[in-house]
Amino acid sequence: MGKFQTLCTKCKKSPAIFFRKYSGEKLCKKCFLESVENRVKGTISRFKMFREEDRIAVGVSGGKDSVALLYILSKIEREFPKSELIAITIDEGIKGYREESLRIARKIAKDLDVEHVVFSFKDLFGYTLDSIFERSLKKEIRLAPCTYCGVLRRKALNLAAREVNASKLATAHNLDDEAQTILINFLRGDVERLARLEPIQSIVHPKFVPRVKPLMEVPENEVSLYVYLRELDFFSAPCPYARYALRGDIRDFLNKMEEKRPGTKFIVLNTHLKLLPFLKQALREKVSLQECIICGEPTPHKICKACELLQRIQN
Amino acid sequence: MGKFQTLCTKCKKSPAIFFRKYSGEKLCKKCFLESVENRVKGTISRFKMFREEDRIAVGVSGGKDSVALLYILSKIEREFPKSELIAITIDEGIKGYREESLRIARKIAKDLDVEHVVFSFKDLFGYTLDSIFERSLKKEIRLAPCTYCGVLRRKALNLAAREVNASKLATAHNLDDEAQTILINFLRGDVERLARLEPIQSIVHPKFVPRVKPLMEVPENEVSLYVYLRELDFFSAPCPYARYALRGDIRDFLNKMEEKRPGTKFIVLNTHLKLLPFLKQALREKVSLQECIICGEPTPHKICKACELLQRIQN
Repeated sequence: MGKFQTLCTKCKKSPAIFFRKYSGEKLCKKCFLESVENRVKGTISRFKMFREEDRIAVGVSGGKDSVALLYILSKIEREFPKSELIAITIDEGIKGYREESLRIARKIAKDLDVEHVVFSFKDLFGYTLDSIFERSLKKEIRLAPCTYCGVLRRKALNLAAREVNASKLATAHNLDDEAQTILINFLRGDVERLARLEPIQSIVHPKFVPRVKPLMEVPENEVSLYVYLRELDFFSAPCPYARYALRGDIRDFLNKMEEKRPGTKFIVLNTHLKLLPFLKQALREKVSLQECIICGEPTPHKICKACELLQRIQN
Repeated sequence: MGKFQTLCTKCKKSPAIFFRKYSGEKLCKKCFLESVENRVKGTISRFKMFREEDRIAVGVSGGKDSVALLYILSKIEREFPKSELIAITIDEGIKGYREESLRIARKIAKDLDVEHVVFSFKDLFGYTLDSIFERSLKKEIRLAPCTYCGVLRRKALNLAAREVNASKLATAHNLDDEAQTILINFLRGDVERLARLEPIQSIVHPKFVPRVKPLMEVPENEVSLYVYLRELDFFSAPCPYARYALRGDIRDFLNKMEEKRPGTKFIVLNTHLKLLPFLKQALREKVSLQECIICGEPTPHKICKACELLQRIQN
C-alpha cells in the first residue's frame, strides 16, 4: 500500500475508495458495496416493504437507479425462495431514446435471470408520448411533456404490475429524488401530494398494487458509485424532453446544502417521515377513492388524471 | 403624464410606481401604501391577533421592519381608542452598533407619540452580548453569537413586555423571515420549532405575553418600499456579528424561486399554515411547561435555554 492511502474505517484492512461525508466513514470497495446493500435491506425491513411470498414487479427503465435496484433486489431475493421478481419496462414511445434503454433493461434482466415484460403507452393508452405531445402542441395546451409522462407512467406501472399478478411494485427512487420531491411539493403547497409521498403506499384498493421504494435511503452519488463498481451496464442519456426547471433548481440547492452540511438530504427525508402520520391524517379525512367513469381505475376524482389528460388531447 | 407611464391598476388614475409580480397589480404610491396597510389589517383580523383593549408592546430595534410595524400599528390603533401601544427596544450591548439604532427607535416612537422603554441584556442578565461572546470564545464554546442573542433576546422581549404590563407582544417578522425560518427548520429537521412558528403564540402560560407577527404576510421588498415612500428614518447597518450562513443560503434560494415563480414565499407560508394544526397536535402530546429552576420562567426543560447558555459562559 502506498503511504498516502487511507484504510477502510470498517474492515481496517483494504484501502478506502469512498469518503461518506455524512457519516465520516471511509470505505473500501467491498465494504461500500455491502453497506449500500445493507442500507437497502434496512429500508425494506424498517418500512416492512415486502412479505416472504411477494411477487415483486420492479420498474426498470434501464437507468442507473433501476439497474441498481434490480441487481440488489435479485441479490436479496436469493435468501427468500418463496418470493419472485419480475422486471417491468414502460415504453413511453420516445423516438431515438427508449430503444437503447430497452435493450439495456432486457440485458440486465437476462443476466440476472429475471423475467422481463415490456408495456407500451401505445398499447395501454393508444398513443405514444411523442404523438401525445405533438397533439398537445397543436391544440396549444400549455402542459410539459413530463406532465403527461408522469401521470401516464404512474398508471401504466400499476396496470402492468397488476397484469403480471404482482403483489408489490418496486420503483427506484433514491434519496435525492425523494428529498427533491418533498421540497418541490412544499414549495408548490401540494399537501395532498406530500401526504402520498410514502415509503410504502398506504392507500389500499384492490386495483392498486402497493408501491415501495427500497432505494429511498441511498443518495444518488452512492447509487452511481455502486453501479460503477459492480460494472453494471446502464443507460445514461437524458430524456430529450427533460427540462425539469423547478426540479433542477431544487436539486442544485439541495446539493449545495448537502455539501455544506452533510446529511441534509437525510434530514429532509426524515423530517418528512416524522410529519407523514399527521399529513396522512389530514388527507384521510378528505380522500375517498372511486372508480374512474372512463377506465374504471381507482381515483379520488370522477375521471382519473390520465383519462383527463388523454381527453384533452383527443377532443 | 408621459406616454410610457402605466396607470395604477387599482385607482386607474395615478401612474404606477410598483409592479407586484405575484398578483399582477401595478400600483401607484397611494394605492401601494394603502395595500400594505390593508394587508397588515387583514393579517391581524384573519389570525385574531388583537382585542380592542389590548396593551400592545412592539419590539422596535430601529431597523426598517420594526419602524414600519410601529408606524402601521400606530395608524391602525387610532381607530381603537381602548388599545395602547408601547415600544420596547432591547439593547443587547453590541458596541458601535446599537447606539445609533437606539437613537432611531427613540425618534420614531417620539414622532408617533408612543411610549418607549429600553431594556438591556446587561440589566436583565448581568452581561452585554459583547462580554458573553468574549467569555464564550475564551471557554472555547463553539456557539455563534447569534445563538446567544436569539435565545436571550426572545426571553428579554417577554420579560420586558410583562414588565410594562402588555397583553400582547408584536414583533416585526416579515414574509421573507417567516418563509426562511420555515425552510431552515425543515432542513434542520426541527419539527418542534416548526410547530411553534405561529402567527399568534398558542402556548398559554401566565408568564408568557402572547406574541403576534402582523407583518408576516408582507414581503421584505414591500416593507422596504413602504418605509422609503413614507420617508421613515431607519437603521440599516448589518449587525457586526451577522454571519447567518444557513439563512443566507436559504434567502438566496427563496429569492431565486420567487423570481421564477412569483408567489413562492406565500406558498411556503401557507403550506406551513395548512400543516400547523397537525404539527401542533404532534407537539401538544409532548410539551408540558414547567418553571426554570434558576429564573422561574416557563420552559419545557428543567433549566430554560437562556439560563443554560448563561451557565456555560459563567462556570
